[in-house]
Amino acid sequence: MATQERGTRSRHSILESAARVFDERGYDAASTNDILARTGLTRGALYHHFPSKEAIAVALVTAHSEALVVPDRAVKLQAVIDLTLEFAQRLQHDPVLRASVRLAVEQTSFSRPPQTAYEQSGAAILALLRQAEEQGEILPGVDIQEATSTIVGAFTGLQLMSQVYSNRADLPERIGAFWRFMLPGLATPGLLGRLHTTVTVPAEDV
Amino acid sequence: MATQERGTRSRHSILESAARVFDERGYDAASTNDILARTGLTRGALYHHFPSKEAIAVALVTAHSEALVVPDRAVKLQAVIDLTLEFAQRLQHDPVLRASVRLAVEQTSFSRPPQTAYEQSGAAILALLRQAEEQGEILPGVDIQEATSTIVGAFTGLQLMSQVYSNRADLPERIGAFWRFMLPGLATPGLLGRLHTTVTVPAEDV
Repeated sequence: MATQERGTRSRHSILESAARVFDERGYDAASTNDILARTGLTRGALYHHFPSKEAIAVALVTAHSEALVVPDRAVKLQAVIDLTLEFAQRLQHDPVLRASVRLAVEQTSFSRPPQTAYEQSGAAILALLRQAEEQGEILPGVDIQEATSTIVGAFTGLQLMSQVYSNRADLPERIGAFWRFMLPGLATPGLLGRLHTTVTVPAEDV
Repeated sequence: MATQERGTRSRHSILESAARVFDERGYDAASTNDILARTGLTRGALYHHFPSKEAIAVALVTAHSEALVVPDRAVKLQAVIDLTLEFAQRLQHDPVLRASVRLAVEQTSFSRPPQTAYEQSGAAILALLRQAEEQGEILPGVDIQEATSTIVGAFTGLQLMSQVYSNRADLPERIGAFWRFMLPGLATPGLLGRLHTTVTVPAEDV
């Protein structure tokens, strides 16, 4: 049991160190030596968990999907907004998430399908928009698949721009602004005034 | 005169070859050898025009700004939409533009301020939105600086996503969809029905 715990801790330590190296240098410039230097583990211990740099990157991309926590909200459009705002906040600090986003955005020799990150986010948002549609929250005539792609694509670019301008400090504000422009073309008029687009969501469910 | 023309042609040939190499491999993996191999020029001829790989990249980023042709439209919001749609179409085929966008989006050792590409696009769009506001095309209460950042950021991510899914074949459609969601939060209701969000803009000015 103690051995297993130690194993889980090493695995996590490798992932977090690798994430910092990938986030700072990008996939191609990162080496397993850099990663080892940060973990203090032996090469043997590293290869016990991950046979290659690519295997580490695959695990990081999976972590991206696990980070997509779907908030429980009665109003499903609010759940979509909060999902993006919470993801924005986690991107400010979480090295694993930052690395997974950089892996998704840059063209490198890392050979996983580059669609993965977009599809993971898209699936979570599309499911919520379907529920929103069933609950009558969506304007008639809106193509929710198109809305999903627009939200995922816009988020991708807004976080890149925010990284360049403020190391993502202003990301939640940029995402909030995006929603204020997007919602009148997406939500029914009666719902519009009830949706929050800032991080300070009231404690009670909307 | 003949010499000068030959010089201009070599310069253009270097830029276009370099753009293809940067677009395919990224800045760090591209070498001046790769670029020379494509131009058929000597190293001396290359250095005559550009003292370094970085100097070529700087010239490519400048080309990005020159590609932002502001369409002449009576309705200034239509000019903004058409600017993005035309840029989307050029991104499908123009190697210089594709390379300049990749240089803007990826974190590499290229040391120019990464804001440059965002600011060039932002300045063109903001100027048009100011005119649109003066002409009464913008909803009251809209912050046009915020609208500009949202448009530039969303475009950046939508073109990345389109590149991954279709090598940018579906980019104009994705940009059109973005505008259909964005415009109800940006344009006055009377104008909404008159704005075109597809590439097939009628020949006469709107």
